[in-house]
Amino acid sequence: VMSEHKQYTIAVIPGDGIGKEVTPWAQQALEKAAADVAAFNYVPFDLGAERYLRDGEILPDEDLEAIKKTDAILLGAVGDPRVKAGVLERGLLLKLRFALDQYVNLRPSKLYKGVTSPLAQPGDIDFVVVREGTEGLYCGAGGAIRKGTEHEVATEVSINTAYGVERVVRYAFELAMKRRKHVTLVHKKNVLVNAGDMWQRIVDKVGEEYPEVTHDYNHIDAATIYLVNDPQRFDVILTDNLFGDILTDEAGAVVGGVGYSASGCINAIDEYPSMFEPIHGSAPDIAGKGIANPTAAILSAAMLLRHLGFDDAAARIDAAVEADIAELGSTARSTDEVGRDILARI
Amino acid sequence: VMSEHKQYTIAVIPGDGIGKEVTPWAQQALEKAAADVAAFNYVPFDLGAERYLRDGEILPDEDLEAIKKTDAILLGAVGDPRVKAGVLERGLLLKLRFALDQYVNLRPSKLYKGVTSPLAQPGDIDFVVVREGTEGLYCGAGGAIRKGTEHEVATEVSINTAYGVERVVRYAFELAMKRRKHVTLVHKKNVLVNAGDMWQRIVDKVGEEYPEVTHDYNHIDAATIYLVNDPQRFDVILTDNLFGDILTDEAGAVVGGVGYSASGCINAIDEYPSMFEPIHGSAPDIAGKGIANPTAAILSAAMLLRHLGFDDAAARIDAAVEADIAELGSTARSTDEVGRDILARI
Ligand SMILES: CC(C)[C@H](C(=O)O)[C@@H](O)C(=O)O
Ligand SMILES: CC(C)[C@H](C(=O)O)[C@@H](O)C(=O)O
Repeated sequence: VMSEHKQYTIAVIPGDGIGKEVTPWAQQALEKAAADVAAFNYVPFDLGAERYLRDGEILPDEDLEAIKKTDAILLGAVGDPRVKAGVLERGLLLKLRFALDQYVNLRPSKLYKGVTSPLAQPGDIDFVVVREGTEGLYCGAGGAIRKGTEHEVATEVSINTAYGVERVVRYAFELAMKRRKHVTLVHKKNVLVNAGDMWQRIVDKVGEEYPEVTHDYNHIDAATIYLVNDPQRFDVILTDNLFGDILTDEAGAVVGGVGYSASGCINAIDEYPSMFEPIHGSAPDIAGKGIANPTAAILSAAMLLRHLGFDDAAARIDAAVEADIAELGSTARSTDEVGRDILARI
Repeated sequence: VMSEHKQYTIAVIPGDGIGKEVTPWAQQALEKAAADVAAFNYVPFDLGAERYLRDGEILPDEDLEAIKKTDAILLGAVGDPRVKAGVLERGLLLKLRFALDQYVNLRPSKLYKGVTSPLAQPGDIDFVVVREGTEGLYCGAGGAIRKGTEHEVATEVSINTAYGVERVVRYAFELAMKRRKHVTLVHKKNVLVNAGDMWQRIVDKVGEEYPEVTHDYNHIDAATIYLVNDPQRFDVILTDNLFGDILTDEAGAVVGGVGYSASGCINAIDEYPSMFEPIHGSAPDIAGKGIANPTAAILSAAMLLRHLGFDDAAARIDAAVEADIAELGSTARSTDEVGRDILARI
């Protein structure tokens, strides 16, 4: 029987380490939550360390082209100690983000009831980091001369464009309109004066179109302090690629662990698929033990559903996760136990 | 009567905001702690926002030349909301660090008895960040084209040399030998592959000369997590200019506030003076109210004394600060009250 539901093709890239252990649970959560509204066709991609070590391929053109044709991507994690740092990260994860023009890396941080934050007085933490995803120090510009000698010089170049900044700034203000209407730009404009000045000017300009949204500015160093001693001050944090990477891991820590933090890499005009992944990495130290927490991966499935317009289905996953954490958050459970417990509530 | 003590000339640059309120206390602590071993001749420099707004001068050549001839610098803080971000920071603070070749920015983090950390279980926090001070994204390379148009491109260039990295790496290993013999390199070598790879290679190479010192590596994003949930793991953190800026502010937060964190900008071969400053900024929001905590500035005076070889005098300041915090750390006091209380114990 043909399903009457809208059909979507989802690329599934479990990747490395615990990515392989948590992604099946994200897929099952997706399937169950949306069963009565959408039909998903999953296309698995064998990408990551195993593939690279086996045949030297990181992200072959035919895989990239096939991924481009899907409606969304579920990604696990990328990175493996057997492969030199940067090879898979730049060749697979960042290549996907850049090739698919995923200009916004959306990273909500929320302290769930039942999770113990390392902060003594965490208060109500509920903010979203809007991290630029296609520019800055992540663009791969730079090089080295006289490598390995005492005269070596190594450079890294941060490239920032008004085009790239304006679109992500606009996204942040739109998002703030649906939230508590406050945007905090985080940069280091007292040192990185070229890029920082451009970011601030564009925020000021776009901000004028959103008179209801207040906006302020923090240096990145000050922002790391506020995340620890006053995280409630934040609603939407808007920042560049590198600062966003740093702040979201720290944010994950203050909400009790990156095991509860998911992220979406959003394509600008739905020309290519957007990608949803837990914020945590491949965690080689615990990989293979069946103890990785699949909650962040499951939350990334909710973000995927919301992105495709299935708000109710997404809310079902979020509610299941919230209830699970509130009741069992402090219990030591295996990956499969957490997965089953959450699934049962969807 | 001529003093029989060794004479030192100290440049005093109170700078902006609360820098002006806390620096006099650092100077008094220096004077009192070292009274029976050294004689100091203080040369005040009128540098910072007031001077710039008055006559447009930031760091005139004659001032820089005069500063170069001193034995050490006591600095308050730089930065003022009336001046565009970056003007004073780059023109004064960073210019001093670069012109005086202050290759190491030394930033100890310690949780004092009596200080309430925002962490629920801080444990014994006692590590030092060795931040490179003359390279990386702080070198001022970069620019902008088509400024103000939709086609603007702004760049920032991180320049890293084997020469600059090796000397700071060596400093970190030497320091580790006097401490718990562990160095953690923090970088982002999975993305910043040129600079990160060079840092790692040089750490590996220098590390071989210090077989007693263990060393490991954290990505900057992971390090921000560990600072919050396991700061005890760190002994010496070795990192670049920007990552060091970010980590030391976060570290200040976890030990209960940057009000307890001092830093030293160390010149490579004592050709030029080293500079000692609190880690906190000029704090325009509380400037002029007489409520800034002078503890960090006073601790920077202790670092200055230790740098000049007066370990006992430095230890007297440290002990006075420790005793003051243990007894009165949680009491609300004015700048002058804290200053007087600490001075009385030296
Ligand atoms: C693995 C790495 C390249 C990646 C990043 O830096 O973006 C990760 O830390 C993340 O935040 O998704
Ligand atoms: C004021 C600023 C330029 C400076 C820096 O970034 O180094 C400050 O944050 C610091 O850490 O000393």
